[in-house]
Amino acid sequence: MQDTREESIKKLNDLIEEMEIAMLTTIDGGVLRSRPMQTQDFEFDGSLWFFTSSNTHKAEELEKDNRVNVSYAAPGDNTYVSVSGTGAIVKDRAKIDEHWSDIYKAWFPKGKDSPDLVLLKVAVEQAEYWDSSSNTIVQVAGFLKALVTGERGGGGENEKINL
Amino acid sequence: MQDTREESIKKLNDLIEEMEIAMLTTIDGGVLRSRPMQTQDFEFDGSLWFFTSSNTHKAEELEKDNRVNVSYAAPGDNTYVSVSGTGAIVKDRAKIDEHWSDIYKAWFPKGKDSPDLVLLKVAVEQAEYWDSSSNTIVQVAGFLKALVTGERGGGGENEKINL
Repeated sequence: MQDTREESIKKLNDLIEEMEIAMLTTIDGGVLRSRPMQTQDFEFDGSLWFFTSSNTHKAEELEKDNRVNVSYAAPGDNTYVSVSGTGAIVKDRAKIDEHWSDIYKAWFPKGKDSPDLVLLKVAVEQAEYWDSSSNTIVQVAGFLKALVTGERGGGGENEKINL
Repeated sequence: MQDTREESIKKLNDLIEEMEIAMLTTIDGGVLRSRPMQTQDFEFDGSLWFFTSSNTHKAEELEKDNRVNVSYAAPGDNTYVSVSGTGAIVKDRAKIDEHWSDIYKAWFPKGKDSPDLVLLKVAVEQAEYWDSSSNTIVQVAGFLKALVTGERGGGGENEKINL
């Protein structure tokens, strides 16, 4: 099973590593809202990580309902990824130091010591993708072999995986 | 107020009309899932319309929980749109006839008489956008003046509008 899980994580990593922007959907008082998130150079290991500010609506929203979706779209490559999980704001100093780059000063002018600089961690529970080998979008889809459970997705419009 | 509403609808139409793919997020048993949707040549009038199949998970999901988000991303233009509302599967024969084009045969080989061909209608309640005039994504955002209510959004990371 371990190899399968590792392969699937690698596949997901390969799919999303070129995508600079993800759309993060949260639940805001019953309303689903999404916003663009700059993706960062974190290797996907079962969680997705983003730099963000603690002074945002999404931080408040996650306290009330932590369910999120992170979607990646590359229409030019006909590749789409949906990642489902739970989001949490964490202030992990070591991780911030490790991944900080001065290019993020565009968002955090005070650098990595900006008091509002935090990490958004998305613990991934399930992911699906549609990739460029598909010649139509609605009917076909990529596949992701099940990881932890070893079970395959249920078919239908595409297959999915539980992490 | 009417002019404001019309202007905002036009603005939203302008933003999304060039985007061929949207990501539709639904709630599936508590899990937020998204999938790519081919956008179609429907003028936005307060609702978004998509051709889809009645034989999809999303049709089942909408019966249980009709809250949706439709996101549009054009990283090349640095333009992003989040649309919140409720989704419903409708079989509107006149609307199908009006908007059908043979290019959709890629998804519905039997054409507009495909028994599973239906419309997904998203009644828009709220929309937000981030546009290319912004030089950063996280901190700035576009604006949408309130439409029906005439109230402006609450500020924060961006402004939003209620339709």
